[in-house]
Amino acid sequence: MPETNDPSRVFPPTLHDLEGAAEGVASREAWDYIAHGAGDEATMRANADAWGRWRLRPHVLRDMSDVQVATTVLGTAVSAPVLIAPTAMHRFVHDEGERATARAAARAGVVYVVSMAATTSLEDVAAAAPDAPRWAQMYMLRDRGRTQALAERAAAAGYTAIVASVDGAAVPRRSRLKGGALVPPDWFRFPNLAGPDDPDSTDLMGMVSDFDPATTFEDLGRFAEWSGLPVVVKGVMRGDDAVLCLDGGAAAIAVSNHGGRTLDGVAATAEVLPEVVEAVDGRAEVYVDGGIRSGVDVLRALCLGARAVMIGRPVLWGLAVDGEDGAAEVVTQLADELGRAMALCGRDRVERVGTDLLLPVT
Amino acid sequence: MPETNDPSRVFPPTLHDLEGAAEGVASREAWDYIAHGAGDEATMRANADAWGRWRLRPHVLRDMSDVQVATTVLGTAVSAPVLIAPTAMHRFVHDEGERATARAAARAGVVYVVSMAATTSLEDVAAAAPDAPRWAQMYMLRDRGRTQALAERAAAAGYTAIVASVDGAAVPRRSRLKGGALVPPDWFRFPNLAGPDDPDSTDLMGMVSDFDPATTFEDLGRFAEWSGLPVVVKGVMRGDDAVLCLDGGAAAIAVSNHGGRTLDGVAATAEVLPEVVEAVDGRAEVYVDGGIRSGVDVLRALCLGARAVMIGRPVLWGLAVDGEDGAAEVVTQLADELGRAMALCGRDRVERVGTDLLLPVT
Amino acid sequence: MPETNDPSRVFPPTLHDLEGAAEGVASREAWDYIAHGAGDEATMRANADAWGRWRLRPHVLRDMSDVQVATTVLGTAVSAPVLIAPTAMHRFVHDEGERATARAAARAGVVYVVSMAATTSLEDVAAAAPDAPRWAQMYMLRDRGRTQALAERAAAAGYTAIVASVDGAAVPRRSRLKGGALVPPDWFRFPNLAGPDDPDSTDLMGMVSDFDPATTFEDLGRFAEWSGLPVVVKGVMRGDDAVLCLDGGAAAIAVSNHGGRTLDGVAATAEVLPEVVEAVDGRAEVYVDGGIRSGVDVLRALCLGARAVMIGRPVLWGLAVDGEDGAAEVVTQLADELGRAMALCGRDRVERVGTDLLLPVT
Amino acid sequence: MPETNDPSRVFPPTLHDLEGAAEGVASREAWDYIAHGAGDEATMRANADAWGRWRLRPHVLRDMSDVQVATTVLGTAVSAPVLIAPTAMHRFVHDEGERATARAAARAGVVYVVSMAATTSLEDVAAAAPDAPRWAQMYMLRDRGRTQALAERAAAAGYTAIVASVDGAAVPRRSRLKGGALVPPDWFRFPNLAGPDDPDSTDLMGMVSDFDPATTFEDLGRFAEWSGLPVVVKGVMRGDDAVLCLDGGAAAIAVSNHGGRTLDGVAATAEVLPEVVEAVDGRAEVYVDGGIRSGVDVLRALCLGARAVMIGRPVLWGLAVDGEDGAAEVVTQLADELGRAMALCGRDRVERVGTDLLLPVT
Repeated sequence: MPETNDPSRVFPPTLHDLEGAAEGVASREAWDYIAHGAGDEATMRANADAWGRWRLRPHVLRDMSDVQVATTVLGTAVSAPVLIAPTAMHRFVHDEGERATARAAARAGVVYVVSMAATTSLEDVAAAAPDAPRWAQMYMLRDRGRTQALAERAAAAGYTAIVASVDGAAVPRRSRLKGGALVPPDWFRFPNLAGPDDPDSTDLMGMVSDFDPATTFEDLGRFAEWSGLPVVVKGVMRGDDAVLCLDGGAAAIAVSNHGGRTLDGVAATAEVLPEVVEAVDGRAEVYVDGGIRSGVDVLRALCLGARAVMIGRPVLWGLAVDGEDGAAEVVTQLADELGRAMALCGRDRVERVGTDLLLPVT
Repeated sequence: MPETNDPSRVFPPTLHDLEGAAEGVASREAWDYIAHGAGDEATMRANADAWGRWRLRPHVLRDMSDVQVATTVLGTAVSAPVLIAPTAMHRFVHDEGERATARAAARAGVVYVVSMAATTSLEDVAAAAPDAPRWAQMYMLRDRGRTQALAERAAAAGYTAIVASVDGAAVPRRSRLKGGALVPPDWFRFPNLAGPDDPDSTDLMGMVSDFDPATTFEDLGRFAEWSGLPVVVKGVMRGDDAVLCLDGGAAAIAVSNHGGRTLDGVAATAEVLPEVVEAVDGRAEVYVDGGIRSGVDVLRALCLGARAVMIGRPVLWGLAVDGEDGAAEVVTQLADELGRAMALCGRDRVERVGTDLLLPVT
Repeated sequence: MPETNDPSRVFPPTLHDLEGAAEGVASREAWDYIAHGAGDEATMRANADAWGRWRLRPHVLRDMSDVQVATTVLGTAVSAPVLIAPTAMHRFVHDEGERATARAAARAGVVYVVSMAATTSLEDVAAAAPDAPRWAQMYMLRDRGRTQALAERAAAAGYTAIVASVDGAAVPRRSRLKGGALVPPDWFRFPNLAGPDDPDSTDLMGMVSDFDPATTFEDLGRFAEWSGLPVVVKGVMRGDDAVLCLDGGAAAIAVSNHGGRTLDGVAATAEVLPEVVEAVDGRAEVYVDGGIRSGVDVLRALCLGARAVMIGRPVLWGLAVDGEDGAAEVVTQLADELGRAMALCGRDRVERVGTDLLLPVT
Repeated sequence: MPETNDPSRVFPPTLHDLEGAAEGVASREAWDYIAHGAGDEATMRANADAWGRWRLRPHVLRDMSDVQVATTVLGTAVSAPVLIAPTAMHRFVHDEGERATARAAARAGVVYVVSMAATTSLEDVAAAAPDAPRWAQMYMLRDRGRTQALAERAAAAGYTAIVASVDGAAVPRRSRLKGGALVPPDWFRFPNLAGPDDPDSTDLMGMVSDFDPATTFEDLGRFAEWSGLPVVVKGVMRGDDAVLCLDGGAAAIAVSNHGGRTLDGVAATAEVLPEVVEAVDGRAEVYVDGGIRSGVDVLRALCLGARAVMIGRPVLWGLAVDGEDGAAEVVTQLADELGRAMALCGRDRVERVGTDLLLPVT
């Protein structure tokens, strides 16, 4: 920092521009699935808007000759406080699918959290970028044996954390999709989610119905037990629940409302992040996703106490537009923007940012 | 809960979509009458917006294997905390009119509150769904004898509560209608509202002018006396008035501004519901209507202390689009959405929701 | 109250509709002059918006069989708490000009405040409706003798109050008008404003430049001295200034920002009315204008402590659309709407309304 | 004050209108460079909006026969509390470039702050208006010798203050420009910014990369030492930093976020000005820029404690539309509007305005 721009670069300059480009290249079915949220999409919009309600109060005249955005997540060194969020079916937008995403994460130096609903097996994702750090996301299924088998596969394939999603107590309706839910193309496969009785099933809603609505805090320990890995609980939106997760053995908390895709009307993640950070009180790392669309948004999340952010839709946009290169570019650009933002706020290390840099819009 | 969606279902996926579909099939006159509100329609818009200003703070990891939305209203078991609000002239949008609505309510397992301005007699509505619970809405008329006769008819026809509307101290002007008021088609009949001297009158405004502006809290007891039934007071917008209603013998309070159709500029119902609930202090059930357009809105109302909600315009939309089936679908869909919302908020019974689930938008 | 509507009436149903109709019939020059405000018109918009930020909390079940909106202003009985505000050049929109307005006020039973910039002499306005109450608005001119002469003419012509405008310390620029100011047609005459040296002048800006920027509180007494009439100070926007006006001999205060036509960026009148009412503390009547567009807005003003409202642009809209009948209709309709609003709020006399009926939007 | 308008004047009546006119005459490249801001331009929009959130509470009936807007900045008498902000490359919009701006400032009687990125040398700007006050803006370069040389040139050429910009710790990306940054035309020259090794360079981004990100408060004194001139620190957005600047030897503070061009998401200047004024506590003059678009905005800034405002983009608009005359007109019009606004607020000297005139919009 600082470095000059390369005027020849043609990648869309902001994530908003990238979104438009992705809509132009994705199939209608894929785009509808990716772009839309639950109900009237109030929460989806609120996620993005809520970050903008925290304005920056930059410091000046600090020595910014060496700005670093590198950090660690659960002890793993990463180039930036950015995780690739678990999103389903990457082959929907690019032939290489999750393999491309894995290589992109490796190049960008960040952790890729592979979705239980990936269209590539955990093992094949691992093989695509064997040296890169990777975490495995999953829901607890009604069939605990199947869940255990998946957790064991993740550990065996070199995944270093389980991301347990906890927002599956009911099947969401995606109002904007015909019939309220996606019907995947016939040739899709779900090698992590499909059950042993029907490994080639494309009945996504049927598989989603296998999520166990009776999952409770007591079940968190099972993921750790089965895999021998730390457990990140994804989908927490309250401080009291975060504490119960930690008491149940969680190693980290991911504040998330599933990008506004599960229950419309839920608070924005930026609105509840401070409460969760305060309740966790330094006992564990806290991540956050939802509507993060620039390096400044990443900085806002860090100021509010997040250890790192998870990026969902934008990675899919990059993947759609330019495959592995595009997905890597999204992460790299966010890291670059974060570094510039930190420099322009007089903070050269991620651990030196805090709420002092923020002014709430009234 | 949870259950999969049926992709073959073609009913509009949200009530906003249904509204558009209904506009397409209703006559221009009917649509204008249904859709519009008083004055510049600020209150009509505020009603819907006000629910969205309460955001949800979901709990996770509670056992949601058995979510129930059933409850009771005035002791009557209902499948969901939803009442069909009293709206006028159902034959305006469907040939079967109130008969279809009555059968829809019966199928959906909820109470139908029949309007004094129905285009079907109380007795014929009762006959259409004899075993279903039904309440009768009415205003106090200048001619108390006519009012008494109607209350007695309701009791005789098996209605189990009188819903006394109290927002009739002046005739509203519907600015968007030519002349400020509806002129019903000649073939309409108002078998509950028309007076004995002119039983075939279609002079709606003349009949509305029969509402007694001198009605006071002391009159509430007369409805009970005439009918032997509990009295729900509909149109209360303040805590102090709610207490005076209870002191006057009311059995329940319905917070309502008549869907923004009576006086523009009035507060949204979601804005005053907490004050009324606090004033009533558990002495009676409180219902609310106005701008409720999803199961999440129903959940918000329950969290704020309502026992149930009343649904007005959306039932007419369903009736216009698909008759009995459409009206039933509206109620069923709201109940389904409520159940999913509760599951995703970690609450499996309606009695277990409260303000702890809500975050006001600032 | 209540009374039925006459469906044959074709006058635009709301003042917003009337505005559109007036734009259609007025000349382009007249419309631009009337419609526009100072600068970017933020204050003009804020005036109207600010009333809407006070929501009504209606009472129900009070005996509303006899609702009265009549009141007095400075001891003069009027049919409603509505004054016709002093606006310039009524012949711009109707041939009969101020004569038509005077007859309209007489029919509607309210006071007409005649503008110093009228295109009809004070005497001719008086002759058009000799028995109706009328007040005369004027600025203090640099030439005190001319001002005295005008005040004496007003008293001689039966005007019963002087409305002293105090927002003339600089000539406003109307950004939307070519050159920043109106150039009136040649045939216009200003028989009250033009000086004795050039009685046929149409140099409006020259005449406006005669307003004395050195006018102070001490000068208020001169208007009373010259005319023997009570003085209403128009253009006050602060409580401290209101007190200084009363100490200077004012009989009443009119809160006004000149409809947003003088200085853009000024607070809305509804925003400062409570402060002025509190400072005046019952020592004098307080009026208010700016953005009042319905009977509900009038009710809001009364609740906040105004004795009456002044209506400016809407009277010109009525005059443009239907001459005397149109101007009278505007006042009558506001009075009718006020009565309905009061009945629907459970208040049958204007003296019985107050802040208890209001809920601020947050 | 007051004076009449000249109806023959055709210059756009408000700065918003001027903006439109400028867009019509500027080249696409110049307009994009001038008009756009960083990222999604939220800060750029917030700057302008934030002034409007302070509403005026005018005083009336004070003697406004002699309104003066003249003041001093760092002891230099100026006709109005307006500085021409340092903006780059005036030859982009007019052939005469910075020479025209210098003559415009001289005519309008205000200080012109010449940009380090001017397309005219400091000496040539001085020669264009030798008797007018002028200040020189610059960043600290990695090469301190080059910075010293520039500061010495400024002093030698009669500049009376150094404006040290402190928001250069990273190179901003202008998302709306192809490649994220401007590529100037080949014929541009940067006689103040270009280094001695390549005096004809047009590699603007390369030159911008010479800004030293290691600049700290300790460096502020060097500018004073090299030039013998007082140092204005431009780009301060916090009270604590302002105090550190003063402790480091600054003579004045300019609150600025670079017109929203450097880091999107930063607070609006009007939001932080009060904090900075309070922290400075009268020890130094405070200036402010960002979104000031009318004399009322200038008055708002003065009320909040600014000694003067800096005007950036609007001067370029005037320059584009009408060269020297246009640039002068922008300043003159702001001064005229300020005078009218003060008169209409009952304040005849700039030192008599304060927060008492302001009402925050809630």
